[in-house]
Parts: sequence; C-alpha cells; structure tokens
Amino acid sequence: MEIKSPTLLIDKEKCVRNIDKMLQKAKNSNAELRPHFKTHFSSKVAEWYRERGVNKCTVSSVSMAQYFANNGWKDITIAFPYNTLESEEISDLASKVSLNILIESIESLNQAKENIKGDVGYFIKVDVGTHRTGIDPRNEDLISTLINESNDALKFQGFLAHAGHTYGCKDFESIKWIFDGAKKSLLQLHEKFGGLISYGDTPSCSLLDDFELFDELRPGNFVFYDWMQKDIGSCQIEDIAVCMACPVVAIHKDRNEIVIYGGGVHFSKDLIMEKDIMGKERRTFGKMVRLSKTGWNSEIIGNVVRLSQEHGVVHLDDDEIVRVKVGDLIGVIPVHSCLTADLQGYYLSTSGERIEKMTKN
Amino acid sequence: MEIKSPTLLIDKEKCVRNIDKMLQKAKNSNAELRPHFKTHFSSKVAEWYRERGVNKCTVSSVSMAQYFANNGWKDITIAFPYNTLESEEISDLASKVSLNILIESIESLNQAKENIKGDVGYFIKVDVGTHRTGIDPRNEDLISTLINESNDALKFQGFLAHAGHTYGCKDFESIKWIFDGAKKSLLQLHEKFGGLISYGDTPSCSLLDDFELFDELRPGNFVFYDWMQKDIGSCQIEDIAVCMACPVVAIHKDRNEIVIYGGGVHFSKDLIMEKDIMGKERRTFGKMVRLSKTGWNSEIIGNVVRLSQEHGVVHLDDDEIVRVKVGDLIGVIPVHSCLTADLQGYYLSTSGERIEKMTKN
Repeated sequence: MEIKSPTLLIDKEKCVRNIDKMLQKAKNSNAELRPHFKTHFSSKVAEWYRERGVNKCTVSSVSMAQYFANNGWKDITIAFPYNTLESEEISDLASKVSLNILIESIESLNQAKENIKGDVGYFIKVDVGTHRTGIDPRNEDLISTLINESNDALKFQGFLAHAGHTYGCKDFESIKWIFDGAKKSLLQLHEKFGGLISYGDTPSCSLLDDFELFDELRPGNFVFYDWMQKDIGSCQIEDIAVCMACPVVAIHKDRNEIVIYGGGVHFSKDLIMEKDIMGKERRTFGKMVRLSKTGWNSEIIGNVVRLSQEHGVVHLDDDEIVRVKVGDLIGVIPVHSCLTADLQGYYLSTSGERIEKMTKN
Repeated sequence: MEIKSPTLLIDKEKCVRNIDKMLQKAKNSNAELRPHFKTHFSSKVAEWYRERGVNKCTVSSVSMAQYFANNGWKDITIAFPYNTLESEEISDLASKVSLNILIESIESLNQAKENIKGDVGYFIKVDVGTHRTGIDPRNEDLISTLINESNDALKFQGFLAHAGHTYGCKDFESIKWIFDGAKKSLLQLHEKFGGLISYGDTPSCSLLDDFELFDELRPGNFVFYDWMQKDIGSCQIEDIAVCMACPVVAIHKDRNEIVIYGGGVHFSKDLIMEKDIMGKERRTFGKMVRLSKTGWNSEIIGNVVRLSQEHGVVHLDDDEIVRVKVGDLIGVIPVHSCLTADLQGYYLSTSGERIEKMTKN
C-alpha cells in the first residue's frame, strides 16, 4: 500500500511482545487481564489478544462496547460512569453479552435499576487519588448503601479504580507510592465488603509486578505505548509500536525546521513539556524518526515543535536537515497513541496490511 | 433527534449571520470571499455559502478537495504546501474542477511541472510573519524564479498569505499591526510582480474592514467562531454558532465539579490559558452553558478545567452545581471549533436536522 498522506503504522511484532509481557505479568500474580480497548479501537488488534487467550475487555463508551460486541467480544466492562441517557443501548448490549457498568452514586444506581432491562454487573468506582470520578474509599456509608442495592439483575461485582495520576509521574518511586496507596485502599474495601478488585493504568501495570491481591488488570495504552509513556518511564523507545508516516512538504533550513503533512487532525494536540539539550523548556508534539523497509528506526532525529490543523513543524539539527527532501516520508512517534489512534480512519501494519478500526458516523 | 451522547449542535441562523457579515465586508472592499472549509467539513454548511452566491472555496488537504469537488464545488484552492506524493490525485481533481495549489520552493514547482497532468494554478505562499510555511517576501530572487516558471498548464495566480500569528493576539491594536505589515508586504509584491492577493485569517478578517487592495479573503473559522476567537476579540459570545450537548454523568459537590460525557475525542485537547476571578491562571477546554429549546443560552456558568479521553470535568460555583443532576444535558462552547468539528461523525442543527460532514475512512 503506497503512503501518500499521514498514515499510522503499526508494528504487530511489538504489539504482540507488549501483550505477551503484560499477560505473563498478570498470570504471575494470578490476576486476569481485561485490557482496555480505548487505545486501539480495532477488532483486528483485539484479535491479537484473543489468540493469546484473552476473552474479556474494557471499553470507555457504549458505542465502543457495541463495536466490540459486534466483533465477537462477549464479556465487556464499560469503564466510564453509567450514562443514564443510554439505558436503552445498554439493555440491548446486556441481552447479547456479559456486561459491567460503573456506579458512583445512588442516583445513577437507582436510574440503572429502573431503566436497564436484562442482567448487568456493576463495579463501584473508587477514587484512589486521581480526583476525576469515583467515591472516596473512606465513604463507607455510601459504599455500603450501593452494595446493599445489589440483586440478580443489577449485581455488585466489586471495586474498580484507575490511578490516572501516575500519568503525572516521571520516576518509579512516585508511581510505586501511588500504587501502594491505591492497593491499600482497595484491599481495605475488599476485606470489609468482598467483591473483585479491578485495577489498571499503564504506568503502574508496566513498572510494578505485585498484583497478587487484584482480580483483574485493565491497562490499555501498553499495547502501543507512546512518547508520553517513554517519558514517564513505562517503556523503552523500542517498545513503542506505532509511528505516523508523514510526507515532507517544505524545508526551512534558515530556522532548522521542516514542515510535514501531519497536524492536530492526525496526532491530536496532546503534548508534553521537556527540556532541550541546553536545559530550556520546550513543547513536544511527537518525535521524528527515519522510516525503514521493516518499519522505523528507533533513533530520534527531530522534535515536533508545533502543530496546526494539518501542518506539523519539526526541528532538526544542521546535519539532519540536509538529508531531508520535499516528498520524503518521515516517521513521527506520537505523544499520546490513544488520541492519535482515535483520529485515524484505518491503520497500516508494517507488513503492508490495512488494519480496520472503529470510526465515527 | 434524541441526544444521548456528545453531539455538536449548530445554530444555522448564527452561521448565516456570520456568513452574511463577512460577505458584506468582502463586497464593501470589492474582494471576493473564498471561505476556508476546514472549519466545518460539511457539504450542507457549504450550501449556506452557495445560496448566498459564493462559488469558490479553500481547503487544507487533497482529501478535503475531493470531498467538496464531489459535492459540486468547481473552484478550489488547496491552501497547504503542494504534497508531491499526491500528484495523481491532484491531476484527477484538475480534470474536474478549477484547482489552485501552493508553491514555496523551486523543488516543489519542478515536481508539480513533471507530475501533475492537466491545468492547475499556483499561488506563491508568502510568510508574513507566522513562520510556519512560505517564502520571506524580501526573497525576490526566489519569487521571481518561481513566477518565471509559469506556463498555461501550471499558471502563476498570485500571492497567498495566512497571518496565523493573529491567533496569539488579545487586542485589536496588535491584530491591526500584524495586518498592516502583511498588507504592506503583499502590496509591494503585487506592484513588482503582479498577480492576485489572497489573504485570510479569522481575527483580522473579523476585526478589520479595509481589504480594498486584496483580491480574495479566505477566513474559515468565522462561520462557527469559538471561545478562542471570543478570547482574541474576533467575536461576541452570541456569534458562536456551535455548542456541544453533553450528558452529565457524575457530580462532585465537595470539589465544585461535575463530570460530563465529553472528552478529548470529542473536543480535541486544544486549550487556552485565562485568569479566573481571583486573577489566578487556569486552563480552559470549553465553557459550560445551559441548553434551551431553541439552542443554548449565552450565559457562561462553568469552566471545563480538565479533559481526558471521554471525560470532561467542569468547575461550577455553589449556586450552579445544585441545579445540575446526573442525566442532564448541558452545553459546552468549544475552545477551537475547527478541531472539534473534525472529531464529529455528524452535526445536529438546533432545529433537529442531522447535518452530514466529511468523515475519515
């Protein structure tokens, strides 16, 4: 397949290696892997999990649950606060697959009871410090009330937490500190109320090993990884399994910049702050690499310093910029693979195969 | 049409008012409006222009040119540096519509000459200070060389500039200063080399009036506007013609926050920095408003302080948060309507009509 416009390349070998590593880690702790599919959005990538014995997944929306249910997934957790407006769609899903939803208030539990037809499990979302959603684990009165409402049609499954604040960490110690705190809270709840413990975020699942007391792990990003995870320390450059192939459309040697076809509508506008070689703070929207016959080379040769809607501006050193011509294809390791993946109509494997994914319509 | 998940509402009356105002401004200066369609991506919205006599448009990619050509647009400028890898697609387009491309180097002009079949016009992209793409207007040698290559098949049309650095302005004076500088450079080029002058960016086209010496104006964002344009001063809140309807999924009174279904995959991650009522710097990813029967109310009642993939977190005052319930639909004025629009599968008009748009596949 000839590449003429920004195209996200997927290295299947790297994905499979990342999956195998995480699966082994879950097995070592006797926990189940229920990977989050919000990173890849793809029935094809999902197959790579299924071939390795994974048959449960996590999604972040009802439409994503519908897509994976239509692609043969029979056990799905929607890890997003129950959207009461979608009770009809959830009822329909519940008639086809084993489905779990998240509850964090008596109001939404009552609404679920009233409006969802069919059997659905619910996890209580616990806030282990991210302060996005979830119940404070010390709020045992509310937790106890929510559990007492459990019945056969709407059944309490356990506690679910996402330590999303590990994304703000840059070293192992702070990630471990967050993990230890989350684990302590979850174990206390489990001891008091029973139920499963479902835990997941790519930094802690990548860097830690002791998940013995957890029932399931739900990381998602690790299948692709990205520059943000490399920056956090969750992975090495060589583990990153996605790279955008972008045409070079202009060269500005006077300011050491090239302009690529590849902008906010291809990468998203997610960015990280980093220090350049002189210690000066700068933004990065991606890292330039060279494409090769089998994929891409892991050596970073440029920094994506700006993105507009369709343009990307890459800063290169003198000795690198002279090697680039208009019409070349270069590679860019994305900062945030989940949001980049969301923006694609399809992916291309490094062996030239078109990989279908969920799209918006 | 029942709204159950994040849905971008379009107020057609406001769009039409914005279009009419810009058309009148162009007419007053005897310039032609060649609106940029990268804001709305929609054949339906494009019709609102056509009904008012506009028959030329600007796009930012070959695929967008194909979409609008397939929807009856016969005169299209691709305002993006010529991507030499798409010469085949450009040749195909040139056989169907009157097409202009952008050139900013002798390398791409030579490639265009060699590879594009059929007649295409070219504008020379001039850098009026944004430093993204384009030739320094003082580089008359290069400009002269590029013009001398003009022939019937690949014909020099004139000079095209986008003063994108007006997006960094917060007051009229600095926008006028940028505009005056750009105008001076473009007029000097026109006097020396002839050719059309094509100019466009929403801030200067919205705030200034004197375009007499320009041949065409290419603003795009103004049809929708957004919170960023309001912040720059290009428009009033009442002019913003798009608003995302989002379900409320969780309420956290203890921290004055509600969680909505509406995240980075719906809004993009574009943000602006602003000062809160205490003068403290904060990020905003959007502004919460109340939905009404005919659209939305322009009073801002909350600030979107964080976005993750599917979640948005909105900060509300004590007296506002008590009025919101799980299952409510609230409105969010997006920070950057172009990137938000790109993320939708379709739009919904405030009169309940589904508005189709270009999607990725």
